Amino acid sequence: MRSAWLLPEHIADVLPAQAQNIETLRRRLLDRALAYGYELVIPPLLEHLDSLLSGTGHELDLSTFKLVDQLSGRMLGLRADTTPQAARIDAHLLNRQGVTRLCYCGPVLHTRPTGMAATREPLQFGAEMFGHLGLEADLEVAELALDCLRTAKVGQPVIDLADARVLRGVLSGVLMDAEGLQALARALASKDAPLLATLSEGLPEDNRAALMSLLRLYGSFEVLAAAREVLPDRPLIRTALDELAWLGARLQAADPALRVAFDLSDMSGYAYYSGPRFALFAAGCSDTLARGGRYDEVGAVFGRSRPAAGFSLDLKSLSEVAAAAPMARAILAPWGEDPALRAEVRRLRDAGEVVVQALPGAAVGHEPEAAAWQADRELVNRDGAWLLQPLTAAHPQ
Amino acid sequence: MRSAWLLPEHIADVLPAQAQNIETLRRRLLDRALAYGYELVIPPLLEHLDSLLSGTGHELDLSTFKLVDQLSGRMLGLRADTTPQAARIDAHLLNRQGVTRLCYCGPVLHTRPTGMAATREPLQFGAEMFGHLGLEADLEVAELALDCLRTAKVGQPVIDLADARVLRGVLSGVLMDAEGLQALARALASKDAPLLATLSEGLPEDNRAALMSLLRLYGSFEVLAAAREVLPDRPLIRTALDELAWLGARLQAADPALRVAFDLSDMSGYAYYSGPRFALFAAGCSDTLARGGRYDEVGAVFGRSRPAAGFSLDLKSLSEVAAAAPMARAILAPWGEDPALRAEVRRLRDAGEVVVQALPGAAVGHEPEAAAWQADRELVNRDGAWLLQPLTAAHPQ
Repeated sequence: MRSAWLLPEHIADVLPAQAQNIETLRRRLLDRALAYGYELVIPPLLEHLDSLLSGTGHELDLSTFKLVDQLSGRMLGLRADTTPQAARIDAHLLNRQGVTRLCYCGPVLHTRPTGMAATREPLQFGAEMFGHLGLEADLEVAELALDCLRTAKVGQPVIDLADARVLRGVLSGVLMDAEGLQALARALASKDAPLLATLSEGLPEDNRAALMSLLRLYGSFEVLAAAREVLPDRPLIRTALDELAWLGARLQAADPALRVAFDLSDMSGYAYYSGPRFALFAAGCSDTLARGGRYDEVGAVFGRSRPAAGFSLDLKSLSEVAAAAPMARAILAPWGEDPALRAEVRRLRDAGEVVVQALPGAAVGHEPEAAAWQADRELVNRDGAWLLQPLTAAHPQ
Repeated sequence: MRSAWLLPEHIADVLPAQAQNIETLRRRLLDRALAYGYELVIPPLLEHLDSLLSGTGHELDLSTFKLVDQLSGRMLGLRADTTPQAARIDAHLLNRQGVTRLCYCGPVLHTRPTGMAATREPLQFGAEMFGHLGLEADLEVAELALDCLRTAKVGQPVIDLADARVLRGVLSGVLMDAEGLQALARALASKDAPLLATLSEGLPEDNRAALMSLLRLYGSFEVLAAAREVLPDRPLIRTALDELAWLGARLQAADPALRVAFDLSDMSGYAYYSGPRFALFAAGCSDTLARGGRYDEVGAVFGRSRPAAGFSLDLKSLSEVAAAAPMARAILAPWGEDPALRAEVRRLRDAGEVVVQALPGAAVGHEPEAAAWQADRELVNRDGAWLLQPLTAAHPQ
């Protein structure tokens, strides 16, 4: 009982100052998505395990907390990612014929942290477009993701482009089981050349050489030309490189200051990507702030395979690099039954002010640690009238 | 796999129109709490089970999903209620000497629904004040709760007042274990007179008569006088009735149209209440919309027993009786690479408009079922300039 207040590892409370920043960011990002026509949905935290994990791969399975439903005896999972849920909603609940744009914002839970300092309870915000095969969809979701980073004021954004089809093209003609493929993808994602060399030992020499060369295909637009030189000339690879060139050029044109990079070995994140993909960073910061791309197969298990592109990010991580919202300035007011006082307090609150009433005999317990507001004015009675005046330094803050 | 899209019982997706209403309500209620000086915190969904359940009673234990932490091997719980978490934050993280006001908004999970149509995943919004023993705290949280209902425009609110000390006073001198006490509280909460008669068979006659009389002590201010007649004259009961009279009078004075009722047998909800308590309804609707009151003991297990009063409500339920937010009016725009078009789309979005781009060859798949926006204007090119015009009926909506 002594340690009842200790939280599990990689689980933390969010205290007022950061919570207020996250809330401000949450509203701005949701409003940004709404401005692009993305409609908010709230999928549940709990689902049947087979629904939550179908077609999403081993990685998501390992990340998902499981428990038994007392009502049905069936196995449930706590969502570790909201994308498959958005696909399920598109496939079954909305069932629209044309393009559907959805966004969401809510917690997800991970059995294990994804890094040393990572939380196991990210607050996932994301947007997904269903029903459009063309690259315009990929461009729109990447632009919305970049717009969200700009809205958060994270400094100069950087976009890394990659494509899930490059690895498939490099390995075409090679028979390999899903586990072997995942091991290669993990070695690529962690840029682990010795491991990649070991894992690829049994492959034909040209596949192996192409695979190893992916690790060096990182940089600006020149990477695409280099890739055409080094990688085998196969339709899957050609299409991927053409589409990356198209996307990169348009993203660059829309924002000449944007740093557009290509990282053809990027295989991080979940296994459902099927085409172009992107990762967003802030210049000078190595943590990925958002990930997205094309995942046309994700709805297939729900009986309606629709083209899909989207992105997601963790609002808790983003809030750590985003510009902090200014602290609210509050008014201290005494407690009392005077109707004029009560009316004035109500009027100020309705006008958007924070008015904190000091209860009789109690100190206003508002030390500045992690506080969301700071008092700078007080409501005082002067000859029967209630007036605002600046708070003198002698008062408790 | 065929049924991969079926959700567990009492678990549901929230589709765009309702999700937008909930989001609007969420912002308004958080802003209302902030205006009273309540600071937002975001406690985690997962905690060690002993931390989550200490001192909260059997009811909450049964409602809590349990799972094992792979990192520590310890038992974790998914929160079924956020109030004990707020008390933990006040006790350990903020550790302020004076009054601390906190608010929160996030999902909670219940193993079993609390009613036929209840969700097992309420979106709990609440506010708590720590550190003030006086009734001014009880009054402030009740007024904030009522203000939230008014903000949600739920029609004429009704407040039912009760006090946890009445039952303790009625049973004073009777030795009874916690289980027996809980059984009595449940019988009272469900107004089950035959069950209450059976359960109280072994009690001394005067305790039993007072207990049975609680079921009839429901109504307006006259209930307080009746209670003084019928219930034994003990300090605990006298204090409770005096405090209910004080609270009721001030709530009535602040809003003459408010229906103030007293229900001395109300024992619903969790076991942590220790003083005055209240339930809010909308006139003509039997579902409780919010519950709150005094729970001074809830932080004791965290080593810092502070006076506490607060309330909570489920935003999903509230959104069903609240006035719906107006549907956003959207602008349809063609897709294109013309910089003038792109600049105009950006300008409109920055000005707060919803601008949906119709991607080449794709229908705008926006049938009105559960939609969050409706297109009423379009962006068209007239002699090289991009102009807004009303959407003609022939266009897809």
